Amino acid sequence: MSARSGGRGARQKMRSDRTVTFMPPLERGLPYMDLLSQEDLLRVHNISMQILEEIGIEFRDDEAVALWRAAGAAVDGQRVRIDRNQLLELVAKAPEAFTVVARNPARTIGLGGRRSIFVPAYGSPNVLDLEGRRRNSTIEDFRNFAKLAYQAPAIHMTGGVLCEPMDVAVPKRHLHMNYSLIRYSDKPFMGAVTSRERAEDTIAMAKIVFGDEFLEDNTVLISLANCNSPLVWDATMLDAVKVYSANNQAMIFAPFVLGGASTAASTVAAVAQLNAEALAGIAFAQLVRPGAPCIYGQWLATVSMKSGAPMAGTPEICHMNLLVGQLARHYKLPWRCSGSNTSSKLVDAQAGYEAARNMYGALIAGANFVLSTTGYLEAALTQSYSKFMLDAEQMVMFYKLGQGIALREIDEAMDAIRQSEPGSHYLGTEHTLKNFEHAFFVPELMNHDSFEQWSFNGSKDANTRGLEAAARALKEYEAPPIDEAIDEALLDFIKRRETEIGDAVL
Amino acid sequence: MSARSGGRGARQKMRSDRTVTFMPPLERGLPYMDLLSQEDLLRVHNISMQILEEIGIEFRDDEAVALWRAAGAAVDGQRVRIDRNQLLELVAKAPEAFTVVARNPARTIGLGGRRSIFVPAYGSPNVLDLEGRRRNSTIEDFRNFAKLAYQAPAIHMTGGVLCEPMDVAVPKRHLHMNYSLIRYSDKPFMGAVTSRERAEDTIAMAKIVFGDEFLEDNTVLISLANCNSPLVWDATMLDAVKVYSANNQAMIFAPFVLGGASTAASTVAAVAQLNAEALAGIAFAQLVRPGAPCIYGQWLATVSMKSGAPMAGTPEICHMNLLVGQLARHYKLPWRCSGSNTSSKLVDAQAGYEAARNMYGALIAGANFVLSTTGYLEAALTQSYSKFMLDAEQMVMFYKLGQGIALREIDEAMDAIRQSEPGSHYLGTEHTLKNFEHAFFVPELMNHDSFEQWSFNGSKDANTRGLEAAARALKEYEAPPIDEAIDEALLDFIKRRETEIGDAVL
Repeated sequence: MSARSGGRGARQKMRSDRTVTFMPPLERGLPYMDLLSQEDLLRVHNISMQILEEIGIEFRDDEAVALWRAAGAAVDGQRVRIDRNQLLELVAKAPEAFTVVARNPARTIGLGGRRSIFVPAYGSPNVLDLEGRRRNSTIEDFRNFAKLAYQAPAIHMTGGVLCEPMDVAVPKRHLHMNYSLIRYSDKPFMGAVTSRERAEDTIAMAKIVFGDEFLEDNTVLISLANCNSPLVWDATMLDAVKVYSANNQAMIFAPFVLGGASTAASTVAAVAQLNAEALAGIAFAQLVRPGAPCIYGQWLATVSMKSGAPMAGTPEICHMNLLVGQLARHYKLPWRCSGSNTSSKLVDAQAGYEAARNMYGALIAGANFVLSTTGYLEAALTQSYSKFMLDAEQMVMFYKLGQGIALREIDEAMDAIRQSEPGSHYLGTEHTLKNFEHAFFVPELMNHDSFEQWSFNGSKDANTRGLEAAARALKEYEAPPIDEAIDEALLDFIKRRETEIGDAVL
Repeated sequence: MSARSGGRGARQKMRSDRTVTFMPPLERGLPYMDLLSQEDLLRVHNISMQILEEIGIEFRDDEAVALWRAAGAAVDGQRVRIDRNQLLELVAKAPEAFTVVARNPARTIGLGGRRSIFVPAYGSPNVLDLEGRRRNSTIEDFRNFAKLAYQAPAIHMTGGVLCEPMDVAVPKRHLHMNYSLIRYSDKPFMGAVTSRERAEDTIAMAKIVFGDEFLEDNTVLISLANCNSPLVWDATMLDAVKVYSANNQAMIFAPFVLGGASTAASTVAAVAQLNAEALAGIAFAQLVRPGAPCIYGQWLATVSMKSGAPMAGTPEICHMNLLVGQLARHYKLPWRCSGSNTSSKLVDAQAGYEAARNMYGALIAGANFVLSTTGYLEAALTQSYSKFMLDAEQMVMFYKLGQGIALREIDEAMDAIRQSEPGSHYLGTEHTLKNFEHAFFVPELMNHDSFEQWSFNGSKDANTRGLEAAARALKEYEAPPIDEAIDEALLDFIKRRETEIGDAVL
């Protein structure tokens, strides 16, 4: 902890006066659904090992290649062939579960095992705005989505690139995104990965918030490295891995599956390949720093043969998720997939069908880290205020679904049933009055009124209700407290870095 | 077989020239997801047994009560208390699986075990018409939905009350519904249950199609008996059961769960009660005719404490379905639930979210007979042309999801992966060209175009695309062939019955 005030002491102070509801990481009460026998699972595993041993994988970065060579892997240019024993030894160093500390300790989360966390959508250059119009997203939108993520009860991290603030120059953009993620919410957040320098800036800003030494033993960031599938980890992503893993911060290793394009047109072949890619990335992080927290991850789409476009919510994506979940549990690794994905351009029935199908599959498969649970449209090209609100409520329902049932209900069932006669009803019974509020969840943005009541109230569709809910939430938003010295230090850092970057880049 | 031409010979002839795609009953490739340990499952079972032994259940029909008394149950007025040994002995007489014969043998379906079938929505008095306007439904709508069900590849029965034809007088309505179900499609159908006489008319019409003796050994109808929950089977439904079960035709015994109203506000208590209700219904059918085919069924909603309205797609409904599935497998009974339910008044994002969530839960739970898989809006009060088409495509995806993965893909995976270099792509590889079309399903009504392409094509939302698809399908519809003598006999029957009913009722 440096001389400035802030750090842990300040964080304690911030605990006060929470009015925002928060649901801690989901403790899964549902059983897992394993698609394969152990024997068949090992066959898929073997294919992945064969890929890494025979075909190899490219690490397009000299430092990375040097690390692999020093570790004894077979290196041919940038092609690295990794023996399965070495690979599995490295992968075994990654923790099965870990904690991500938030600047508000009440928002600190555990990850891995039977726990799942939900995170907003990532990376959209466009937004469907508060009037439902499509335009480039801005830093103002970014701040708004940070505020909405802060308020959403079943959203466990503020997110990362909540949208691309297109009105801020790329070299300085990460500074303003990081600041917004820190300032307008108090949940853990995701760091910049688009260059080594930007990752280092993120670490520096995290140290301002948490104190210099704190990061050495604690994870406060989860950042996202996408694989250049098939079988390439590129220099940009590897630079980010080197920075974050060296600093004990968590990385997601995310093969990018466009089934039929970046993988073969086969569910199993796609999974065997992404498994090789993810494990190679995780093994690399262990070369950087043994024990560095890692998340086995992927982004999944199948490709439309009509247009070449990525599709969400298809049956094969659910199958892939089920297979990946089974593999990740086999390797004892936390794993990531995406949630409420859709290709729709609007918040229409397609958006609802696809988001629900995709997210249901992720829940059933048991993903520990679900990215893109709110707001995702157009295969990630657009973030939507309306869908953010609708999805956020859906996530509360997915959370409750994932909890399974409370077995104490069995003890009380007979008593409850005795309180009503055959042919009567339960509306006024003692048990009903006592249990109604928590027994069955009532979503507010899904409308259950009669047609007449709904018409009387303006015949609003779900998109309209989502827009209204977003405007209302932003109006009611109150920023979480932050230590003033930390806030000033962050703003000073941004100012200094902007000057340096401005000189260097413009 | 009577002297008139028709029956089996005619059905053979009809096999010709099918252009309509048909996916046979889904053979489940997914594992089941059991929420409870065997011990806890037996605890729930015991509560149901305790309900029937101690509280009892009302059979509000003298004939039914007499049957129970003759069988040795404890009868007190209409309250019947059934010992668990007697109950389970009766239930064990119901077949674990059975076949439902269609007038086109290629559409005959098997039901039970790992097989699932999908059936359209049931009973709506309103329709969102081909222009998306809400009005009372008519016999013309009914015919149209029969035509659409005929064309839908993953829909296994034409359905029952596809919508209520409000322009046909109630006493004669069933005749015209039955005729439409028979004439405009060739899949199995559901019979009238609103009175003994109407059930008998349905049997008579089925005998015209299949021949008098055929029904004695074959099941051609599945009909729906709703329970007057809590714990009442009423005379109307029992009359229908007596007719259909005596004639070896299948009945669904469907407790009607409005969680918090017709059951206690508890997932487990609701299931324990519906289990008692369904098993009592099935046991009764076995008193009528041992071995009569039965489906353990239920309609599930939780009740909004804001409005008292039923809700679909809630977490607790999914939990109930998982519990019911586990119980039904324990009793070795085929079971039913509902699919694409929603409370939405429109084909909007709510409709998509709720339909997908509800149906996904039904699939995961392993329901054998899924009613209301297409078109359902407003908690069953409205049938929608647009949603029918969108849902029908979703059902193809649920079907493929339920099939699981083809393990032969494991053998081919390494070869497929070898066809592309790291950093390249798979778009032109031999494996891709060979597998692209069947590896990944491409829905036609979900739009995956770029925003620009989609805008150029008119910026159509899913509802608009669904309406267009319905109009197109009805335009392209060609009626399946029917033996002219059968058709004439059906029309003669209707004419005669209308005269009789007209004299008696009007």
